[in-house]
Amino acid sequence: MSVGTDAGLLAPTWAGTPAAAEVTDEAWLQAMLDAEVALARAQHAVGLTPAAAVEAIASVARTDRLDLVALAHAARAAANPVVALVTAFTEVVAAEDAAAAEYVHRGSTSQDILDSATMLVARRVLGLIAADLERTAAALAALADTHRHTVLAGRTLAQHAVPTTFGLKAAGWLRLVADALVRVRAVGSALPAQLGGAAGTLAAYREYAALDRGETGDRASDRGGVELLGPFAEALGLAEPVLPWHTVRTPVAELGAVLQLVTGALGKFALDVQTLSRTEIGEVSEPAAAGRGASSAMPQKRNPALATLIVAAARQVPAHALVLAQCLLAEDERPAGAWHAEWQPLREALRLAGGAAHTAVELAEGLIVHPDRMRANLELTGGALVTERLAVALAPVLGKVRAKKLLTAASAEAADTGRTINEVLSGHPELSARFTPAELSGLLDPARYTGAADALVDRALRALDPADTADDTTQQATTGQEKEGRHDG
Amino acid sequence: MSVGTDAGLLAPTWAGTPAAAEVTDEAWLQAMLDAEVALARAQHAVGLTPAAAVEAIASVARTDRLDLVALAHAARAAANPVVALVTAFTEVVAAEDAAAAEYVHRGSTSQDILDSATMLVARRVLGLIAADLERTAAALAALADTHRHTVLAGRTLAQHAVPTTFGLKAAGWLRLVADALVRVRAVGSALPAQLGGAAGTLAAYREYAALDRGETGDRASDRGGVELLGPFAEALGLAEPVLPWHTVRTPVAELGAVLQLVTGALGKFALDVQTLSRTEIGEVSEPAAAGRGASSAMPQKRNPALATLIVAAARQVPAHALVLAQCLLAEDERPAGAWHAEWQPLREALRLAGGAAHTAVELAEGLIVHPDRMRANLELTGGALVTERLAVALAPVLGKVRAKKLLTAASAEAADTGRTINEVLSGHPELSARFTPAELSGLLDPARYTGAADALVDRALRALDPADTADDTTQQATTGQEKEGRHDG
Amino acid sequence: MSVGTDAGLLAPTWAGTPAAAEVTDEAWLQAMLDAEVALARAQHAVGLTPAAAVEAIASVARTDRLDLVALAHAARAAANPVVALVTAFTEVVAAEDAAAAEYVHRGSTSQDILDSATMLVARRVLGLIAADLERTAAALAALADTHRHTVLAGRTLAQHAVPTTFGLKAAGWLRLVADALVRVRAVGSALPAQLGGAAGTLAAYREYAALDRGETGDRASDRGGVELLGPFAEALGLAEPVLPWHTVRTPVAELGAVLQLVTGALGKFALDVQTLSRTEIGEVSEPAAAGRGASSAMPQKRNPALATLIVAAARQVPAHALVLAQCLLAEDERPAGAWHAEWQPLREALRLAGGAAHTAVELAEGLIVHPDRMRANLELTGGALVTERLAVALAPVLGKVRAKKLLTAASAEAADTGRTINEVLSGHPELSARFTPAELSGLLDPARYTGAADALVDRALRALDPADTADDTTQQATTGQEKEGRHDG
Amino acid sequence: MSVGTDAGLLAPTWAGTPAAAEVTDEAWLQAMLDAEVALARAQHAVGLTPAAAVEAIASVARTDRLDLVALAHAARAAANPVVALVTAFTEVVAAEDAAAAEYVHRGSTSQDILDSATMLVARRVLGLIAADLERTAAALAALADTHRHTVLAGRTLAQHAVPTTFGLKAAGWLRLVADALVRVRAVGSALPAQLGGAAGTLAAYREYAALDRGETGDRASDRGGVELLGPFAEALGLAEPVLPWHTVRTPVAELGAVLQLVTGALGKFALDVQTLSRTEIGEVSEPAAAGRGASSAMPQKRNPALATLIVAAARQVPAHALVLAQCLLAEDERPAGAWHAEWQPLREALRLAGGAAHTAVELAEGLIVHPDRMRANLELTGGALVTERLAVALAPVLGKVRAKKLLTAASAEAADTGRTINEVLSGHPELSARFTPAELSGLLDPARYTGAADALVDRALRALDPADTADDTTQQATTGQEKEGRHDG
Repeated sequence: MSVGTDAGLLAPTWAGTPAAAEVTDEAWLQAMLDAEVALARAQHAVGLTPAAAVEAIASVARTDRLDLVALAHAARAAANPVVALVTAFTEVVAAEDAAAAEYVHRGSTSQDILDSATMLVARRVLGLIAADLERTAAALAALADTHRHTVLAGRTLAQHAVPTTFGLKAAGWLRLVADALVRVRAVGSALPAQLGGAAGTLAAYREYAALDRGETGDRASDRGGVELLGPFAEALGLAEPVLPWHTVRTPVAELGAVLQLVTGALGKFALDVQTLSRTEIGEVSEPAAAGRGASSAMPQKRNPALATLIVAAARQVPAHALVLAQCLLAEDERPAGAWHAEWQPLREALRLAGGAAHTAVELAEGLIVHPDRMRANLELTGGALVTERLAVALAPVLGKVRAKKLLTAASAEAADTGRTINEVLSGHPELSARFTPAELSGLLDPARYTGAADALVDRALRALDPADTADDTTQQATTGQEKEGRHDG
Repeated sequence: MSVGTDAGLLAPTWAGTPAAAEVTDEAWLQAMLDAEVALARAQHAVGLTPAAAVEAIASVARTDRLDLVALAHAARAAANPVVALVTAFTEVVAAEDAAAAEYVHRGSTSQDILDSATMLVARRVLGLIAADLERTAAALAALADTHRHTVLAGRTLAQHAVPTTFGLKAAGWLRLVADALVRVRAVGSALPAQLGGAAGTLAAYREYAALDRGETGDRASDRGGVELLGPFAEALGLAEPVLPWHTVRTPVAELGAVLQLVTGALGKFALDVQTLSRTEIGEVSEPAAAGRGASSAMPQKRNPALATLIVAAARQVPAHALVLAQCLLAEDERPAGAWHAEWQPLREALRLAGGAAHTAVELAEGLIVHPDRMRANLELTGGALVTERLAVALAPVLGKVRAKKLLTAASAEAADTGRTINEVLSGHPELSARFTPAELSGLLDPARYTGAADALVDRALRALDPADTADDTTQQATTGQEKEGRHDG
Repeated sequence: MSVGTDAGLLAPTWAGTPAAAEVTDEAWLQAMLDAEVALARAQHAVGLTPAAAVEAIASVARTDRLDLVALAHAARAAANPVVALVTAFTEVVAAEDAAAAEYVHRGSTSQDILDSATMLVARRVLGLIAADLERTAAALAALADTHRHTVLAGRTLAQHAVPTTFGLKAAGWLRLVADALVRVRAVGSALPAQLGGAAGTLAAYREYAALDRGETGDRASDRGGVELLGPFAEALGLAEPVLPWHTVRTPVAELGAVLQLVTGALGKFALDVQTLSRTEIGEVSEPAAAGRGASSAMPQKRNPALATLIVAAARQVPAHALVLAQCLLAEDERPAGAWHAEWQPLREALRLAGGAAHTAVELAEGLIVHPDRMRANLELTGGALVTERLAVALAPVLGKVRAKKLLTAASAEAADTGRTINEVLSGHPELSARFTPAELSGLLDPARYTGAADALVDRALRALDPADTADDTTQQATTGQEKEGRHDG
Repeated sequence: MSVGTDAGLLAPTWAGTPAAAEVTDEAWLQAMLDAEVALARAQHAVGLTPAAAVEAIASVARTDRLDLVALAHAARAAANPVVALVTAFTEVVAAEDAAAAEYVHRGSTSQDILDSATMLVARRVLGLIAADLERTAAALAALADTHRHTVLAGRTLAQHAVPTTFGLKAAGWLRLVADALVRVRAVGSALPAQLGGAAGTLAAYREYAALDRGETGDRASDRGGVELLGPFAEALGLAEPVLPWHTVRTPVAELGAVLQLVTGALGKFALDVQTLSRTEIGEVSEPAAAGRGASSAMPQKRNPALATLIVAAARQVPAHALVLAQCLLAEDERPAGAWHAEWQPLREALRLAGGAAHTAVELAEGLIVHPDRMRANLELTGGALVTERLAVALAPVLGKVRAKKLLTAASAEAADTGRTINEVLSGHPELSARFTPAELSGLLDPARYTGAADALVDRALRALDPADTADDTTQQATTGQEKEGRHDG
C-alpha cells in the first residue's frame, strides 16, 4: 500500500505528543477548510456572501467529507493541494446547497488558503510550545533556586575549570528557555492571515464584491478588497497583514528562526544532562519511568532517553529553518518552488520543537540531582580546580605572570604524581611565607570559590518577573526590542 | 486524533509516487522485521538457530501482526523503536512457537536492526531512482540529439549572451543526470548491512554461539561473531561491512550527498524549464495533462507544475544531507542524539529524490520544444548576441581592446535607439573597409555562431556508452575513481 | 607566502565596502584590545584598578603594537587567539609601565574578551546595515509611490497571472526591508557585553577585588563581581547581560537569524530585478556605471551585477546562520568546538549582509523602470491575463465552475492559434448576450484590473510611520512583539 | 584601513597551515594567471598562438605584477574578478610585448579562468589533505594494532555499555579516515579544467582559430574548439571535461561533499578524544607541547586543543558543502548568483578541511593512551558492564525475557546500594545452581568479554591493503564503486 500511517515511528521526539496531532495531514486539511470558512464569514461580514451560504459552507467543512489521500495525490497536478481541494469541496457544498457552492473560495487563490492554514497550524503549535516552555522554565527556576549552594566542577573544553554551582548552571538553562519563550510569544502573536488573490492585488475579491453590488470593478468601493483583510484575520484569530505576503516571507523565516531557538535552548540543557549523567560523572539522572532508557541488549542500561529525544530534535531543526530562510528568495508575485519547499520543513520543525518542549517539561520537572557525586568529583584533581584562585593570591607576591607559571608547573606535577596541589605546594617557600596552612586549605576549598554564582542566580530569577525588570539595571538589554514591529508583509 | 495519514498532502513531489510507498512507517517497520528474520537465517546458516525457529520467526514477521502506532509511541521510552519492537515481536513469535521466541533478536542491539532496515529501504529507493534517472537520461539524450541544430539564445547572468543550441543545453542536463546516476549506482551497491551488537564487538552474538555449542565465550570459535557478517549481509542482499559502523557513518553521509546530487541535477533541469517556459520566453512547455498546471483562480494558467515539484525537492534535500553529514560527529560507541537525528531527514531525502526522479521522467519524456520562439527571441537584440563574434573579426583591424570598446558602444547605441547592430555599424568606415555587407550579415547571423555545440553534443552522447568511453580522450576524467573502495566502516 | 591579504577577491559583494573594513583580522584584534581597556576602565570605575594603570593600558591598546600574524598562528595552541594576545599585550604594557601590566586581563578569561569584541564588531556592522536599509527603504518607498499606477504583468509560477502595479511590487520589497530593519535595530541594540570569568561565576574578578581591598574572597562585597557588569558594558557601549552567556548563545544565534533576514529581504528584491531585467522582459535596468555589468567576452553585455552581488550573498548567509544556530548546543560551562565554530561564519555573515545592504542602496536608488516594456508585455498573451476577471463576470451567467472551464478552453485556444481572448470569445453567444463589445474590451483591459494595488501601496507606506501605525487597524500584527525582552543570557 | 590581513585570527584550525597558504587571495589570483598561461599554451599546442606570445604572457604572469586590492574592489563592477584581471593583465603583457597582448584571454570567458583556477587550488589542497589523511590513517592503524588488547568501557548513549578495546575504537576512526581518503583521491584526480567560452559552445575559441588560419568560422575545423580541451587540461594537470560545466556543477558539489566527509571523519575522532580526555574519564591525553591547551585564566588547564580545532572545523564544513550543493541549481548557461556564491564557501571548506587534516596528524601520532584509567573505569559500575553476558548465560535457565528482567533489577539494586553485581547476585539460587563462584567471576570479568574486537581490528587493518582486499570476503562492499565514472560535465 502506498499510503502510510504518520505515526512517527522514526521520530520518537514527537510521536504521540500534542504537537504532532496538530500538524498531521488531516489537521492541515482541516485548517485549509477553516480558512475557506473564514473567507466566507469575512465576505459576509462586509456585506457580501449571504449568511445561509456561510452556514452551508461551514456545516460541511470537515475533513471527513473529503478523500484526503485522493487530494494529496491530485495535488501533484497543480503542485499544491488547494486546487484539488477547492474542486472537491465545492462539490461537497453543492451537494448540500447548490447556491452556496458559488460562494466557495470566492475571489481566492491557493496561497491565500494554504498560507492562512499554515499560520493557524503554527499558532496552535506555538501555543503548545509556549505552555511547555513556561513549565520548563518554572522547573529550571526551582532547580536554580534550590541548588544555589550546590557546588560542582565548572567544566570548560571538557576539563575541570573552576567551581560553580548547580544553581547557576540551571540559571543558564533558564535564560535560554526564557529567551526562547519571549520570541515564541512575539512571533506567535504576530502570525498574519494571508489574503491577496491571484497576484496579491485582491482584484478578484473586489471584483466579486462589485458584482454583488452591481458595480463595475473600476468604480468599486473597497468593500471586498482591503476591507476584507481585517474581518478575515479576525475570523481566523490571526494578525491582519499590512500587505499580502505571498513573496514577503518574513513570517515563515521567523518561524524557522524561533523554532531553532526553542530546540537550541532545550538542546543545550539536554546536552548538559547527557554529559552530567555519564557513568563517570553521575551528577544528575533522568527521572525514572518504566522502560525509560532501556536497551534492547543490555539489562543494566538507564540511558538518558529524554535528553536524547531533545538533542535529536535540536540537530534537525536548524536545517529546516535554513530551508525556510532560503525561501525568502521567492521570485515574482508567487514563486515556482520556493513556496512549495516551505511546507514540509515547517511542519517537521513545528513538531520537532513541539515534541522537544513536551519532553523538556518531563526532564526539567523530574531531573534528579546528585550533590554527593558533585562533591566527589570536585576532589578528583586534588585542588587543581582552584589554582586560578591561588594565582590571584600569589599575584602580589610573584607578579601575575610568574604566579601563573608556578601554578601551571605545580598542576602538572600534581597530575603526574597523583599528589594534591596542596601537597605539591606545601614546601614552597614563597607560599609558606605568605599563607598559613589553614589559609592555604581555605584557598583550596572549592566550595569557597564560587564567585558571584549566588547573585547571578538571583539576577536570572528576577529577570523572569516583568514587573521587576522594568526598572532594574538589566533593562538596557531590552532597549530597542520594545519598538519591534510587524513582520507580516 | 493524534495519528495522521502520511498521504503527502504537503509534499506533492512525492505524494503517491513509488518511492513514497517504500519509506512509510509501515515499510520501515517491515524492513526491521526483515532484518530480524535475516539475523535468524544467518545464525542458522552458521550452525546456530534451528531451522524450525527461523521458520517460525519468518512466518509472523509481518507488520499486520504488530500495532504500529503503539510501537511508535512506545519508542519514546528508549528513544528508538526497536526496543519496543523486540518485546512485541518476541510475544508474537512466542504465541506461535514458544521455543522460537528464544531466538528472536539473539545477541543483537537496536542499531543493528534499525540501520540494516534503513539500508534495505534506501537500497529499494535508490533502485527506483536509478531506473528513473536512466529513463530521464535517455529522454534527454534524445532531446540533445534531435535538437543539435536548434539554435537559441545562450543566456548568462539573465541576459542574452551568444547563441547556443537546445541540443547542447539538453546535453548539459544529461551530464548532470549521468553524473548523479553513476553515484546512485555506486552508493546503492555498497550499502552495508549493520551488525555489531551492543558496542560493536559482536560479543553477544559470539556468546550465544558459544552457549549453543557448549563452549565458553573465551575459547569461542568465531562462528557467531565475524563469521556472521557475511551470511547476514547476504540474507539482506546488502554489502558486507568491514566493521560495524554504528559510529562510522560514511554510508549515511554518502546517501545524503548522493540524494542531493540527484535533486540538484534534476533541479537544474527543472529550473531551466521554468525559465524557458516564462510567458515572455516561451521556448519550451511542459507536457500537457488534464488539470496539469491549473490554478485555483486563473482560467488561463498552465503552470510548469512538474518543474515546480522538482525544484521544490531540490531546495529541501541539501538541508537533509547537511544533517546527515553533521551526524558523522557521533560520539562513543553509539551516540545520544546524532544517530537519532538521521532517520527523518534520510527518509524525507529519499522520498523527495525519488519523487523528483519520478517526476523528471515525465518532464523529460514529454517536454515540448518551440524552435520558432527560440528563433524569434534570437532576433530580439538586433544582433547584439553576436557582437562577440564581431569583436573577434575586428581584432586584427583594431586590436582586441579597441574592437571590444567599439562594439560595447555600438551595442549600447543599438539598445538605446532600437536599431540593429548592423544598422548602427553599417556606416562605420573600419567595418566597411573590412567586410562586405553580405559578410557582415553572415557574421551577424546567430545560427552561424554556435561554435562547437554540435561536437559537444556528440561527446555527451558518447560519454554515456561505457564501451566507448573506455578508450577515448575523456577517460582521464575518470582516473582515480576506478579504485574507489568501500565506505562501509 | 602563507599569509594573504584579505581583499575579498572571491567576495565582490563585500570587497572594499565599509562593512568589510569592520571585520578584518585587524578590526577584530582592535576590538579585543578595546575589551581589555574597557575591563580596566570598569575595574577602575568600581574602585579597583588605579587610573594610571588604566591609562597605561589604554595608551598602548593598538594593533600596531602587536604582531597580528604571530598571534593568529599562536592561537592554534590554545584554540583561541586571546591566550597569546594576553601574553603579548601584557608585555607591551609592561614595557610601558611595569606596574600597569599587573592590571591587564585581570580576573578575566578568553571568552569574555573575544565575545565582547565580537559584539562590538557586530554592533558596528549592524549600524552600517541599519543605515543602508533605511536608505534602501526610502528609495523603495519612493518607487512604490511613483509607480503606484504603473501596470505590469503579475507573474506567478513563472507565468503571467493577473495585472499588478510596479508600485505594489516595490511595496512588497519595502515590507521585507522594513521587517529586516526592525529586527536589525532590535538585535543590534540588545547585543550584550560578555563578562563571566573562567566558568561564568565572576570568581576571579571578585578575588582580585577582594585582594585589592584586603578582604578574603569569602567575605567579599560584590564590587568586582556582579557590580562589574554594568560599568564594563557601559565602557563598551553594549547592553548589560543578565548572566554571563558563555553557553547561553541566544545573542549569536539571533545575529545569524537577523543577518539572513537582511540578505533574504534584499535577495528577493535582487532576484526580481534579475528577472525583470531579462532580455525578453526588459522591464527594469540596473543603474549604469562605467564597467558595470561588463563581460570579459561579450561587448554588448550589461549584466545585472548589483543584483548578482546581492543574490550571491543571500545564497550564503543562511548557511552561516545555521552554524550559529547549531552552536547553541554548547556543552558545559564553555564548549570545546561549538564556540570556536562561530567566529568565521559570523564574520562572513556580517560582511556579506553589510556588503549586500551597501549594494542595495545603489540598486534601489538607481533602478531604472521601463513602463513601456511593462505595457508591451501586458499585451503578450492577448488578454489571457485578465481571464480571471472574465470568470467573475461570467459566474452569474454560467456558474463559477462552468465559467472557469469555458475560459480555460478559450485561453488554450488563444494560445494555440495566436488569437486574442477577445477574438476567441467574440462569437460566443453567452458573452454576447451579456456584454457589449465595449464592455468586453473594458473587462479585458489589464490596466483596469489592478484590484486594491493602490490602497495596498498606501498601507505599506503608512506602515513605515510609527506615529501613524500606532492607532490603525494593522496594529494587531504587532501584538506581543512589544513585550519582547532580553535575549542576552 | 579597509583591507585586512588574512591571518586566520578567528580560524586557528587553519591559521598558518599549508592548506591556508594555498587558498589566499594571492594564491587564487596566481591560479587565475596560471589558467591564462595554460590557455595560451594550449592554443599554441594546437597551432595557434605563437610561441613568443606564450612566453611573453608566461613571463609576467605573476601576482606581483598586479594590484590585488584594486582588482578585488574592481570585481564588484562585473560581480567577478576576472573582467578586471583581464584588463589589467593585458596591460601588463602589452607593456612587455604589445603583440603578445592580443593573445591574452583569447576567446575566453571569466568563468573558464576562475573555474579552472579553482580546480587548480582545490587539487593542491586535496593533495595536502590526502597526504595528511595517509599519515593520520597510519597512526590510527598503529594505535589499533598496539591496543588490540587494551580493554575499556564501550559507551553508548553516554553510559557504559559493554567492554570493547581501544584497538577497535581506533579501528573505527581508521575506517572513517580511510573512507574519506578514498573519496579525496577519487574526487581529486577527476577535477576537470573548465573551457567553454561565453555560453559554453567554445565559439570564440573556434572563431579566433579560424581567423588565424584565414578560415571563416562556419567552415572551421575544430582545432580551436573541442580540440583545445585536452591540451588545456593537460597544461593545468587537470582532467579533461566531457563538456563545459559552467552550469553542470557536479565537480563543485562533490568537492563540498568530500570535504565534509574529511572533517566529519576527523571530527568523530576528535570528539571521542575530547570525551575520553574529560577529567572524570582521563583515558587519553593530547600530545603535550609548550603552551598547548593553555587557558588565559586557569594555570592547571591542559585543554584538548587539537581536538577542539578539528571539531570546530567539522561543525562548519557541512554548511559550506550545503551552499555548494544548493548552487547546483544554476540557471541558464551561466547563472546570476549561484556561481558567485560558491567561491567563499569552497575556499573556507578547503582550508578548514586542510587545517583539520594537518591537525589530525599531530593528534593521531601523538595521542597518549592511559590503559590504567581504562581499567579503573571498567570497575566503576561493579560489573554492570557485563550483565549482557550474564543475560546470555542465564537465558537457557530463565529464558531470555526473564533473564533480562532479573538482571535489570539486579543492576538497579547495585546502582542504588553501591554493591557490585556479583554481590547482589551472589545469593540468588538460580545462579548458584548454575555457576560456581569462580565461573561467575569469570563471566563478570570485563576483559574476557570483548567479543570479536581482535578479529575486527584485523579486518580494518587488512582492508587498508588494496592487494589484500582484492579477493577477500569484504569485497562485495565495493561492488559498483569500481565502475564509477566522471562527474565533470
